[in-house]
Amino acid sequence: MGEFLQVVSYEEAIVRLKSRLKRPGEEQCPLGRSRGRILSRAIASPEDMPGFNRSTVDGYAVNALDSFGASESLPAFFQYIGAVPMGAAPDFSISSGQCAWIPTGGMLPAGSDAAIMVEYTERLGDDTILVYRPGSPGENVMRKGEDISRDADLFAEGHLLRPQDIGLLASLGISRVPVIKPYLVGIISSGDEMVPIEMPPNPGQVRDVNSYSLAAAVEERGHRAQIYPLVRDDADQLKRMVAQSLEQNDITLLSGGSSVGIADLTLDVLLSFEEAQLLFHGLAVKPGKPTMGVSIKDRLVIGLPGHPVSALMMFNVLSHQLLDSRRNLHVHARLTQNIASQPGRDDFVPVYLSEGAGHWEARPLLGKSGLMSILAQANGFIHIKAVDQGLKGGEVCRVYPF
Amino acid sequence: MGEFLQVVSYEEAIVRLKSRLKRPGEEQCPLGRSRGRILSRAIASPEDMPGFNRSTVDGYAVNALDSFGASESLPAFFQYIGAVPMGAAPDFSISSGQCAWIPTGGMLPAGSDAAIMVEYTERLGDDTILVYRPGSPGENVMRKGEDISRDADLFAEGHLLRPQDIGLLASLGISRVPVIKPYLVGIISSGDEMVPIEMPPNPGQVRDVNSYSLAAAVEERGHRAQIYPLVRDDADQLKRMVAQSLEQNDITLLSGGSSVGIADLTLDVLLSFEEAQLLFHGLAVKPGKPTMGVSIKDRLVIGLPGHPVSALMMFNVLSHQLLDSRRNLHVHARLTQNIASQPGRDDFVPVYLSEGAGHWEARPLLGKSGLMSILAQANGFIHIKAVDQGLKGGEVCRVYPF
Repeated sequence: MGEFLQVVSYEEAIVRLKSRLKRPGEEQCPLGRSRGRILSRAIASPEDMPGFNRSTVDGYAVNALDSFGASESLPAFFQYIGAVPMGAAPDFSISSGQCAWIPTGGMLPAGSDAAIMVEYTERLGDDTILVYRPGSPGENVMRKGEDISRDADLFAEGHLLRPQDIGLLASLGISRVPVIKPYLVGIISSGDEMVPIEMPPNPGQVRDVNSYSLAAAVEERGHRAQIYPLVRDDADQLKRMVAQSLEQNDITLLSGGSSVGIADLTLDVLLSFEEAQLLFHGLAVKPGKPTMGVSIKDRLVIGLPGHPVSALMMFNVLSHQLLDSRRNLHVHARLTQNIASQPGRDDFVPVYLSEGAGHWEARPLLGKSGLMSILAQANGFIHIKAVDQGLKGGEVCRVYPF
Repeated sequence: MGEFLQVVSYEEAIVRLKSRLKRPGEEQCPLGRSRGRILSRAIASPEDMPGFNRSTVDGYAVNALDSFGASESLPAFFQYIGAVPMGAAPDFSISSGQCAWIPTGGMLPAGSDAAIMVEYTERLGDDTILVYRPGSPGENVMRKGEDISRDADLFAEGHLLRPQDIGLLASLGISRVPVIKPYLVGIISSGDEMVPIEMPPNPGQVRDVNSYSLAAAVEERGHRAQIYPLVRDDADQLKRMVAQSLEQNDITLLSGGSSVGIADLTLDVLLSFEEAQLLFHGLAVKPGKPTMGVSIKDRLVIGLPGHPVSALMMFNVLSHQLLDSRRNLHVHARLTQNIASQPGRDDFVPVYLSEGAGHWEARPLLGKSGLMSILAQANGFIHIKAVDQGLKGGEVCRVYPF
């Protein structure tokens, strides 16, 4: 029986994988197709917003000074000189004592610094406007660059583009954005007992679950998955399939039988490639001890546990920092019961979150290891750190969405 | 100046829209492409899982009764009769006093009801196994149907398929799933001051933001958006464009100038269609008062406010219950300051969530109305109910992801 050769913490595993993963490529993406993509570089505003001093009300553009002292009983008189058009710059300016009609969104004419709401004015004949309230400089005006100034930082590198971000970029005329190219990820399941899901399994056979769940998880993180045909527990077959995936992908995910013998076979096959380097073999993590990482030239191979729940949990734990920077918000929840944990090992425990009175409750999904039904029940997981000996019922802990 | 004809609460608006929205279509989707799709009907398990009594350890299959009383000093003796193959049913059964080698995942032979871990056994010659610990019936065995029993409910109608769900369905051999067909949503922006984002705006013009942000929001909810060319504030042009969108889409989203005059023009155009029916005109909501809903035959038209922040907030509020059933987890957060709110109106306030010590803090993004920079800053929003007069700083409230 083999042993784990290089057991490391999951943080160290991520550091080692990251050091070998080539930087993602970059491409220019049309804004209208950029939802869910990740910025490959920071974006600063190319211009001031608004681009001109803009009225936020329907009313009259004035020099505020001219309205000082105006009141219901003693209105200020203004000479009406025209109307600011919507969608164009006014072709006149305001001198002392003058005013111009301005619609919401209109551009303040030179010489004006405030807009008086129409409610506080009265028209007297063709060219006189009475103003019944004093305005102050800047009142009802959004100044040029007040919302966003030119060169202001909008989004950092690694930002995941949401609908509102796309709106903001559109408002600044940015019609293409630099985004990272998805990684290509090959997925290989192996095991003598595995059958494709379309085939009825004989007694003792199980269907290949990991190809489906891992491919979906890869795509959920914005990358591209390719599923390879099932492989028997056979070194030659496995080597041929891994070679093909290495050629076509940046990352290859293997998942196979969880017994140590099969893991040995996988490790032997991986290390037989030229320039193969063992990054780690064994993680101080539950579930997922048999996880392994190998770099082959500039490609990565990650061997995941065979059990579907463990494989998916480990993929989530490793890929969260490796493959994207999107942050799903964690929630704070009260544990419904104690969870024991062995110190020196990070535990990731699936939980069912439900709503209590004004707080979330997290029920750990324990029971026999390897229950598939946990997949349908879990909507979050808890991380019990290696230094901790477990968590107490009633304790408030972080739950990450799953 | 026009008035709002039928001001309703946002809940009532949703009820009215829902009553006119035709049920979504249904289609069969290959499992491998079903991530993010919504089930159109509940799914029950077609079979027991596991499909046979399965060992969870490497060891020996026995009848537990035969091992009772076994100890380190007084082991039980078993006759070894063979090995259970991986991926096939054993072609023998276990009689009293007999045992068989069984690998993890192997099928228990008839006559056996427990698996003794190999660690507690010793092989004595070719056909004798010593067992040093008593087993109990069912020990180290996952019974047929114990994980998931046949006909058990797996997922309800309306469930959003996640990677783990796809894994579970694969494990049960379900290779196609019934999902709802996306709605087709037409998006029309109007306004004399609007220009397409590729064009440099003249002073006083603004770029068309809503087409981009609304299309992205529609697609984020799993539906299909089609953007129509910009329309001037002109009844004939608007009517032609709406007619085209009605023909091609289930739902049409309009967003235009926020001034009441333009809203009147939009409403007149919509009500001029045959079988048009006003569902509501004006919402008791901030921001989003000018929102309107009209049904035309079996199609819906929703008029959204012109301002991008208001338009997107209102789309989120209305579409959450109208267009999908996915539930993003809300978080509980402490408000950093008071927020005033007018009773009788639902307020939706964008906030910036950040992490305090063991809890979230929510900073309301207030300031001048209409700031576009709020779009980049907000990562959540708060709902202040119509009955409430605001929220106090320090209060814990629900924040919905944005």
